[in-house]
Amino acid sequence: MSTVDPRLSINQGTIKKADLAEALRATAANGVSSIGLWREPVQEVGLATAAKMLADSGLRFSTHCRSGFFTMPEGPARRASIDDNLVAIEEAATLAAAGAPGSFPVLVLVAGGLPEGSRDVVGARERVRDAIGELAPAAQAAGVQLAIEPLHPMYASDRCVVSTLGQALDIAADFAPEVVGVTVDTFHIWWDPEVLASIARAGREGRIATYQVCDWKTPLAADVLLSRHYPGDGVIDFASLTRAVEETGYDRDIEVEIFNADIWAKDPDTIVRETAAGFGAAVSPHLRATVAR
Amino acid sequence: MSTVDPRLSINQGTIKKADLAEALRATAANGVSSIGLWREPVQEVGLATAAKMLADSGLRFSTHCRSGFFTMPEGPARRASIDDNLVAIEEAATLAAAGAPGSFPVLVLVAGGLPEGSRDVVGARERVRDAIGELAPAAQAAGVQLAIEPLHPMYASDRCVVSTLGQALDIAADFAPEVVGVTVDTFHIWWDPEVLASIARAGREGRIATYQVCDWKTPLAADVLLSRHYPGDGVIDFASLTRAVEETGYDRDIEVEIFNADIWAKDPDTIVRETAAGFGAAVSPHLRATVAR
Repeated sequence: MSTVDPRLSINQGTIKKADLAEALRATAANGVSSIGLWREPVQEVGLATAAKMLADSGLRFSTHCRSGFFTMPEGPARRASIDDNLVAIEEAATLAAAGAPGSFPVLVLVAGGLPEGSRDVVGARERVRDAIGELAPAAQAAGVQLAIEPLHPMYASDRCVVSTLGQALDIAADFAPEVVGVTVDTFHIWWDPEVLASIARAGREGRIATYQVCDWKTPLAADVLLSRHYPGDGVIDFASLTRAVEETGYDRDIEVEIFNADIWAKDPDTIVRETAAGFGAAVSPHLRATVAR
Repeated sequence: MSTVDPRLSINQGTIKKADLAEALRATAANGVSSIGLWREPVQEVGLATAAKMLADSGLRFSTHCRSGFFTMPEGPARRASIDDNLVAIEEAATLAAAGAPGSFPVLVLVAGGLPEGSRDVVGARERVRDAIGELAPAAQAAGVQLAIEPLHPMYASDRCVVSTLGQALDIAADFAPEVVGVTVDTFHIWWDPEVLASIARAGREGRIATYQVCDWKTPLAADVLLSRHYPGDGVIDFASLTRAVEETGYDRDIEVEIFNADIWAKDPDTIVRETAAGFGAAVSPHLRATVAR
């Protein structure tokens, strides 16, 4: 197990079929020391139980995935979304407190797409900013950093109207960096001609809440949500992107988050081992010498 | 036929199964007065014959689609691509001269994706600039405007490393605007948070060689190349984009270019009529009062 990078974190989405107990077991058993959790499997056992299970695992907690989905206009659906985001903030705070030292209370936010029947992407983006404004005081009180995640523009209409890192930073700019940061996910932003400049800006502004890695390969899966690959299996240049993130001083864990039906079909131990191998080959060489935690 | 917008141009890709003769016939017979041609059906009959057929049709010629594909490193494949692009420049000049008054010698350029096995998107983009530098003198001599087309970022790895209108303008900036312009295609750029500013910049810099419209709708087709829809059938806000283009003073024809297996399966007359109807409903209301040509 000595070959597993100490900064690798397995995002639970990568081993989607594992419940919380199995995800914690497979991650720790294969020498990985950090995990990013998803809300549904946490809620399945209840937050207090999940926190105890996480503490017992000895793993660090790197992010809570995911909340957001607040592009709808004012009304009951929007109120329900805000309320649910407040629950997610509490979950992130509780889980980070239960994780091993080096855990961070980061809550990943996916904005949501255009409301049904709407063509007003500009308005939807304004409502993202408004929602974060509503959530920021609760996040600050809980010590949670919200991490706005720009998603690839192919998801702009149906999943996330925040499409570039620069745009995420523009939204975050209204708030304190320890309250509102950004998610830097290679899959979503590798194509952006401004990506290196935007990563540097995110660092200068203290906004990189989490760095997530997975690869891009074509042809895309028929369901484009499931087109993510192990680092090294596609065309993303992890050297330049990882170095750009490292140069900002980012020193948190680095998650691998993959949605891929072929990978999900494998058993969790295999997935964790293959993830660690891909990470070790494609990402680790571009990290600073790791400081013992 | 009086209801067909006089600025509508049918891109031949929209009626892909029609050969040149059928494309010209279906376009003219259904009251459309302009057409954008594709290289393959032109070459099928030969350039001189194609030019005569176009002249006989009485249609204007709006663009020639498409050339480019020059991201590979120096070597025989790159030389072959440059040579083929020089042929395409001559084709565009000849066809525009044969079209009715109001034709423009525009050659659309799709850059190409990453070379096989490469992860160097920055280098590929530099080679796009280099290739255009090689082609510019020939284009200028022929009176042809090259139109760099940014393609949606979901095509960045396998089809076009130029992903935003701003990036296309940055490449074009090294050249005179009458020689190197850009293609403004709603499908590819609607999601861009900078799209309205980039359209305004393109206008200020005199770079809008062609404005092309089709719609975006999810779920994307399993082959994401074929996800384009009639204007009005998806989520693109043609009002804001069309007004932004019009405000630049753009007064050329506006092409509808759709790749969609369900649409291609229809007969060309039906496609042209449905295209004209969609354009009339979704785009025409946002055009300035049309000046008679």
